[in-house]
Amino acid sequence: MGSEGVQDGVSWRLCPSAVSANETHAPGSDVAVRTDRIGWSIMAPMNPSPALRFLTPAGWRDLHCHADANGHIASLQTTTEPVAGYALPGIPNTHSHAFQRAMAGLAEHQTDPADSFWTWRELMYRFAGKLDPDSQYAIASQLYAEMLEAGYTSVCEFHYLHHQPDGRPYDDPAAMSQSLIAAASDVGIRMTLLPVLYMTASFDGRELEPRQRRFGHTLDAYLALLQNLRRKENPMLRVGAALHSLRAVPQSVVPALLDAMGGEDFPIHIHIAEQVAEVEQCLSLRGARPVRWLLDNAPVDARWTLVHATHLSGGEVHGIAASGATVALCPTTEGNLGDGLFPLRDFLDAGGRFSIGSDSHVSVSPVEELRWLEYGQRLHARRRNIVATSRQPSTATVLLEQAWKGGAASAGTASGAIAVDHAADWISLDPTAPALAGVRDEDVLDRFLFAGNRPLVDQVHVAGTCRVEGGRHRQHDTIAHRYRNTLQHLLSKT
Amino acid sequence: MGSEGVQDGVSWRLCPSAVSANETHAPGSDVAVRTDRIGWSIMAPMNPSPALRFLTPAGWRDLHCHADANGHIASLQTTTEPVAGYALPGIPNTHSHAFQRAMAGLAEHQTDPADSFWTWRELMYRFAGKLDPDSQYAIASQLYAEMLEAGYTSVCEFHYLHHQPDGRPYDDPAAMSQSLIAAASDVGIRMTLLPVLYMTASFDGRELEPRQRRFGHTLDAYLALLQNLRRKENPMLRVGAALHSLRAVPQSVVPALLDAMGGEDFPIHIHIAEQVAEVEQCLSLRGARPVRWLLDNAPVDARWTLVHATHLSGGEVHGIAASGATVALCPTTEGNLGDGLFPLRDFLDAGGRFSIGSDSHVSVSPVEELRWLEYGQRLHARRRNIVATSRQPSTATVLLEQAWKGGAASAGTASGAIAVDHAADWISLDPTAPALAGVRDEDVLDRFLFAGNRPLVDQVHVAGTCRVEGGRHRQHDTIAHRYRNTLQHLLSKT
Repeated sequence: MGSEGVQDGVSWRLCPSAVSANETHAPGSDVAVRTDRIGWSIMAPMNPSPALRFLTPAGWRDLHCHADANGHIASLQTTTEPVAGYALPGIPNTHSHAFQRAMAGLAEHQTDPADSFWTWRELMYRFAGKLDPDSQYAIASQLYAEMLEAGYTSVCEFHYLHHQPDGRPYDDPAAMSQSLIAAASDVGIRMTLLPVLYMTASFDGRELEPRQRRFGHTLDAYLALLQNLRRKENPMLRVGAALHSLRAVPQSVVPALLDAMGGEDFPIHIHIAEQVAEVEQCLSLRGARPVRWLLDNAPVDARWTLVHATHLSGGEVHGIAASGATVALCPTTEGNLGDGLFPLRDFLDAGGRFSIGSDSHVSVSPVEELRWLEYGQRLHARRRNIVATSRQPSTATVLLEQAWKGGAASAGTASGAIAVDHAADWISLDPTAPALAGVRDEDVLDRFLFAGNRPLVDQVHVAGTCRVEGGRHRQHDTIAHRYRNTLQHLLSKT
Repeated sequence: MGSEGVQDGVSWRLCPSAVSANETHAPGSDVAVRTDRIGWSIMAPMNPSPALRFLTPAGWRDLHCHADANGHIASLQTTTEPVAGYALPGIPNTHSHAFQRAMAGLAEHQTDPADSFWTWRELMYRFAGKLDPDSQYAIASQLYAEMLEAGYTSVCEFHYLHHQPDGRPYDDPAAMSQSLIAAASDVGIRMTLLPVLYMTASFDGRELEPRQRRFGHTLDAYLALLQNLRRKENPMLRVGAALHSLRAVPQSVVPALLDAMGGEDFPIHIHIAEQVAEVEQCLSLRGARPVRWLLDNAPVDARWTLVHATHLSGGEVHGIAASGATVALCPTTEGNLGDGLFPLRDFLDAGGRFSIGSDSHVSVSPVEELRWLEYGQRLHARRRNIVATSRQPSTATVLLEQAWKGGAASAGTASGAIAVDHAADWISLDPTAPALAGVRDEDVLDRFLFAGNRPLVDQVHVAGTCRVEGGRHRQHDTIAHRYRNTLQHLLSKT
């Protein structure tokens, strides 16, 4: 594929068929050329994309997209060539527990007539106890390949499976983090790794249960891990912080952690208000609902992502929106776990921003997440086109724009837009798909989300590199073979 | 493919590589041989299936399945050969308006802040006005191929688009019915055609609006159509009756129709209680809720399928269950249209039976229908595994058994079971699918419904004939090409 290296601190890749600088800068054409990064002109640009009808912030445009060696869009060149189809920004997946992919379908068995999130969690703990860095790598590789095939081009990995099953750190305390980073890198998905701080078993501060010890850190040990991981950042890897939940972090630790992190601009995620029982415990032990408590006790701002935030009072809806934080919604997991419905219309009316995540990976599809986010609201309100407005009447456009913009905020990356200096991450749709027959530009997104359920994704590019062709990851078979062997081994363990 | 014909009133097909009678009847093996149909022994049996692990009423069994020339299972032969994978009964799709497949994704655009079922219906009427037998054939062929690819092996077509756009009958009044029959036959899906009686625009008996005239019949004209179509019945085609809804059929016509049909045993379907407004109108004009009215005024029994039945009182829940009727639930359409949630747990507790349908075809997948049927209930109840019980703890098993048994009742066919004399309709699952890695027999159905959303269907057989291989219909490209051309033409019409 060419040679790679680092020059002046910027990685480069020489592609055999690279276009010349003249072609990239064709004078007189409608080209936006990036000029703000030292060294870019000395790098051989990667192959430009074929001519595609890209969805840009200004609407649909027939373009060639040129990526630089860091995987950002260097220029967008208009074209009059016939286009090969429609292309959209890749969709950020902002909430993932990779290991749970291997449990999908194993918890749909009644264990108790009152089956709930809490009985599901028992199974999850037992399964988590079986994993090591190698098996996690195999599972995460399969998952991330599926994400790419479905149109996700980045993942926020909310990672709490840190230590050995008995709770002792691995020789390399970052061994489990490293296995996730390796999986993302090998599969070619953009990653925001969020190592999770997990200290207590409940709001009352009780210590972790034995099967939770794999997840635990002192604040100092956590900060050391965070610092170690941040040194590994590169154009495809961001590192942020995560608090598992208010019940897992003592009241005093939240400000201490934020102090230690200083004013740095990196993403902070937290699970919040997913279950009614958790809301009630917080109210009883901290005197406020979880979101209210967080807004009152932490400097919640645009760096923050509140995961789920299902159960909100009206004041909390407005409080989140006013803070600038993003809510990460995970409709398929929230449906599977019976969490409840987020007050979406009120939140959008308040100016709120959301992103989507596949969370427990009972489904890996932005289409299913966004479609059922809207359908859940319709079933509740007994109306249609809930998120659409007179200003933006296309339901799918509202949903996808939130997923792109909110997703970029949750991931802490310049992604979710086909624009210069943004991530060169896009998905093209199969031009022969019956679901797109006779489509007009203004209907593409509604057809993508609401017309059948055959996957429409054809090619997927991340950082300008093609990872998926014809809807299949280029290493599909190798990754799936390793995953099957790993699962057979794991599931045969008693 | 061999020669075909009719002998002693039974159609036969001679396959070049037909197994010998000795192989079919291997003595000493666990073979259930059908002996009840005159003439079967003189017919050359079709090729037996490869060795598969079939889900039978007695559990998983490693079998070869032998179909007869009518497409029923002649025998099931146990085998010790290594099996090629898991196979399930094909799933009946019990509610379809084929032409609406072409509208999928076109109604997700706000036309009114109070968008609802009723504004959606306006678009549907405009679209219906453009169709003729040829374009309907192209759309239905595409839809039925997608159904087979998704694991549906039969379809109940609730057909009301009878006449020319101005309301005049075609020269052949059954022309539109014929186009649907031809599509099903050419694509190879089993069909129950339900020509619909549609007479009035509302409960008050007002006449059809101009754009509804394509749908309308006098009772006599309807009975003539029904009689004509019933003469076309064959092993792959059943014909039943349908009342569009109580609002579309005058009060006096229901008993008159049933009298004219006599005591014959064929399926009768009706749309009922889908929308709250419709329930309120019925209550106000007929003095009872729609389901209550129907139970009190028609001999509702196991022949009947009540489509949607979303809005029910407790008494109606028990009334339907006691009648033996099946409820056809269509979760993706009901979500798309914002209908509301069916009282599923109460209905199952009362002993009720349901089937599933893809209705408007915003999705064509039994997996999505059944998964979100359960998830809708979970989101409402804030619990998990709603349909499972201590007697049958697997959620997917309960859902699929209902879809099979209720589906057979709705379709009026001996389908939905791998058993002698039942339809030789089965789907095999891709044995290399990561979602099935390390699977145990008892988890197959839960994994099928709740582990990701890549289609798991590999081969699909209907009446013993393979129609789908590797998840693709054998005529996929031809059918899709014709569909694309038809849609481009239809959508360019103003």
